[in-house]
Amino acid sequence: MLDRLRIVLVSPSGPANIGAAARVMANMGLSDLVVVAPRCNPQDEQALAYAAHGERIVRSVRVTEDLSAALAGCVRSYATSSKLGMYRRQTAITPEQAATDAMRVISASAGPVAFAFGRESFGLRNDELLAFDRVVTIPADQSYSALNLAAAVAVICYELRRAWLTAEGRHELPMAMHSGWAPNERKEAMFRHLFDALDRIGFFFGPNPDHLKYALRHLLGRVDLSINEVDILTGMARQIQWYVDHHPPDPDARRRT
Amino acid sequence: MLDRLRIVLVSPSGPANIGAAARVMANMGLSDLVVVAPRCNPQDEQALAYAAHGERIVRSVRVTEDLSAALAGCVRSYATSSKLGMYRRQTAITPEQAATDAMRVISASAGPVAFAFGRESFGLRNDELLAFDRVVTIPADQSYSALNLAAAVAVICYELRRAWLTAEGRHELPMAMHSGWAPNERKEAMFRHLFDALDRIGFFFGPNPDHLKYALRHLLGRVDLSINEVDILTGMARQIQWYVDHHPPDPDARRRT
Repeated sequence: MLDRLRIVLVSPSGPANIGAAARVMANMGLSDLVVVAPRCNPQDEQALAYAAHGERIVRSVRVTEDLSAALAGCVRSYATSSKLGMYRRQTAITPEQAATDAMRVISASAGPVAFAFGRESFGLRNDELLAFDRVVTIPADQSYSALNLAAAVAVICYELRRAWLTAEGRHELPMAMHSGWAPNERKEAMFRHLFDALDRIGFFFGPNPDHLKYALRHLLGRVDLSINEVDILTGMARQIQWYVDHHPPDPDARRRT
Repeated sequence: MLDRLRIVLVSPSGPANIGAAARVMANMGLSDLVVVAPRCNPQDEQALAYAAHGERIVRSVRVTEDLSAALAGCVRSYATSSKLGMYRRQTAITPEQAATDAMRVISASAGPVAFAFGRESFGLRNDELLAFDRVVTIPADQSYSALNLAAAVAVICYELRRAWLTAEGRHELPMAMHSGWAPNERKEAMFRHLFDALDRIGFFFGPNPDHLKYALRHLLGRVDLSINEVDILTGMARQIQWYVDHHPPDPDARRRT
């Protein structure tokens, strides 16, 4: 599905921005980049340098003379705009809404969808907005709402990937190595080892030593311990016990106070 | 609350990245930027140029020698990392989770929270990760997960603003000018005008003219018409009627087929 998400840059003037856009597209798993009437060479050295490992996207960029050719075949088109003027304010949607909508569209049709970004200097013209089905606005501080072109592409590509992962029923971050939350009996055993070890080095002293156990128990109870983490804490307790076994307490040593 | 969100850049080498980070911070309403042991002048001309209207953030950047000084006073610290190695994979959280957590923390305490970003070349070192409470990973394609520094700052600041708007109970986009969804009677009146106008110019012809009315009715029924949009469509219908009143149909004109 990600290969049916098209990024369209309208008349960009900075090769660095084209390269940075390509890089974040690669980061997010996108590949279809179209540049309309560029005011620079979209494949020059600076573009390739900024693209880093997204270089192949710059090398396969398609250049069109007009917006219409860039949107050819698309079943839905989204314009990005930071200006919330009279007309735009009423109909603009958020990046999250647009990304969710885009996933719905491409899962129900064969054609691609396009997200377009305007010039560095003033974005998309009003007449260009007429070419799009929806207007997307990144929520920004109204005192300075114009993002750098590459930053705007980053935010939109990030939301598209998030929506794709959700649509695919995948975790945002691969959790295959998570050992799972520890069940109660594993935690009980760990606390027995830990309290015994701490007791042997004289940690629980004073008139009310149990309050330290409560504090530790609930401190660790707050953090959703995984099985792996319970094993690490058990190992720590065992190591304390091992040390005490091999270095018996000196009855003459002064207690820590 | 946004002024208690600190962005920390650890040993950046590119003034352009520092400037771009400052710009997106300004876009998202953040202002507290700290740079640790920079390998460039964080206030040079390129940084100021890339910051654009975020210039004041570059001018007020604080430079520290080490990470500890940069995190001073923070009640929670988040490291960003694209590497999902053995340890990191188990505990990393998403930008959305981190931003929501950060809002909870600053609404319940006085201290700031910090989000830190590593070097352009290899991010944060393992020993540096020890200084943080949480590790945040931007969900990216595992074949190329390293974002450009400024792109990563853009994604995190965007999520922080979203979480802040949610915490404040605000819409992501200011909708004050939205006229509200049109109630049924407004839509009924509009369709009466529209169908009458289209009838007068001969649009409804053929053996089953009503199917065109159904198509138009349900096409416009899909789009959550606002009161303002219903007024626009009513105006369009009235204008057709006005034209027909002033240019009566020529009985000799051939019908459009």
